Order: sequence, then structure tokens, then C-alpha cells
Amino acid sequence: MESEDVAYDVFSRTCPSRPALDVLTGRWGMLALSALRTGPMRFNELRRRIDGVNQKMLAQSLQALERDGFVDRRAQGVFPLHVRYSLTPLGEAAAAKVQELIALVEGRMPEVLGAQRRYDERAAES
Amino acid sequence: MESEDVAYDVFSRTCPSRPALDVLTGRWGMLALSALRTGPMRFNELRRRIDGVNQKMLAQSLQALERDGFVDRRAQGVFPLHVRYSLTPLGEAAAAKVQELIALVEGRMPEVLGAQRRYDERAAES
Repeated sequence: MESEDVAYDVFSRTCPSRPALDVLTGRWGMLALSALRTGPMRFNELRRRIDGVNQKMLAQSLQALERDGFVDRRAQGVFPLHVRYSLTPLGEAAAAKVQELIALVEGRMPEVLGAQRRYDERAAES
Repeated sequence: MESEDVAYDVFSRTCPSRPALDVLTGRWGMLALSALRTGPMRFNELRRRIDGVNQKMLAQSLQALERDGFVDRRAQGVFPLHVRYSLTPLGEAAAAKVQELIALVEGRMPEVLGAQRRYDERAAES
């Protein structure tokens, strides 16, 4: 059986699509994908763009995105060595979907904050 | 200043949109949102649908989704007490975006697995 014949299903605990979805939707991975939509970036540019990420978490997220084929990592020059990250075509498709989710959340934060306030008031009453 | 005037930005570490995005994109939260697109479900139905989730993780994810206004939780009856979860209109909008991301990952797993294989081969060579 060719792997292309398999139906992948994130609801199944052993399906490899589940860890792939995790790689795409980790906090730092999503922000890296979103940031790279504007074009290739160096590691330190990405780190500055993603407020609050530390070097280790960003490196791990980029490595996982590279391994899954969403991000391309290219080293240029010898000294100084420049490492440039960019989206692959698959990464661009995924980043577009991630961006829609980010836009939805950012655009509907007044509703989210209202819901949080009501929830916390009910919790305080009971 | 009304909260509606604020520009929310997930790239800013203090923006409340960042934890809201985390709630939406946690592994169990995404699968719960996706499952609830077919209609309201009881806790144990959700638990059976989401292969591999444990009671504590599912309860925490649903509580966070409820607090942020994505999921509605309704208790019915007294004994037996039935708790029914459903998507709010905001949750339906978010679940539709989550579903697109899931469909993309499931649909492109042959590419992801190919990338993983090439990455691991390169890593083994070096």
C-alpha cells in the first residue's frame, strides 16, 4: 500500500497528522509562519519580531517546521555565516490558514474579553 | 478609551489575543472545536471522539474554550445530570478556521512525511 492511499485523521491518536498539526499550531511556530509570510528572515530578525520568544524555543520551533517541510533553512556565506529562513510552498499554504486564525482571534477579541468577564463574574458569584 | 479601539496583536507579548490564540490552538481544544462542528455533544461523547485525550485535559480545554466564549456549556436535568457542550457563533467561526488547518495537514501528509524522511536522512549523514 502506498502511503498516499492512507486516510490521515487527526482524531486518531497514532496518526502522524496529529504531531504535524502540533508543529503547525505551537505558539512560536504559528508566529514564525505568520512572520515569514512577509519574506525570508534571519534568525535574529525572527526573534525580534516575535516578542517574548527565547532563542531555544524559537530554534526548536523552526527546526520542527523545517523537518515537516514548512520552512526552508539556508546557510549563506562562511564568516559571517548567515542563516535565512523562508516558507516552502507547503509552508505558504499552511501560513495562510494560520494567518486567518490569527486574524479571527485579533478581530474578535472584544467578544472574547466580554466572555471572559462574564465567566469570571459567574465564577465569583458561585 | 473603549476596548474596541485597541488594535490587538499576537506578536506583542502582553496582548490578550496571544493566550486566546493558545486556547484555540491547543491540541485538545482544536479537536474539541472540530468535533463540535457536527452538533452538541456530552462530555463522554467528546472524550470517546477524541482518541487519546484524558478526562483532565479535556475538561481543562473545554473550560478554557467556554471562558473565552467559543463553547457553551449547558447542564440539563438533575439526576442524571447531563452536561452538553456546543459551539457559540464565535466558536463556529473559529472551528471553521481550525477545520481548514486540519484539512490542510491531513491532505498534505504525504509531503510532510517525505520532508521528514529527507530531513532525517540528512541528519544521519552529517
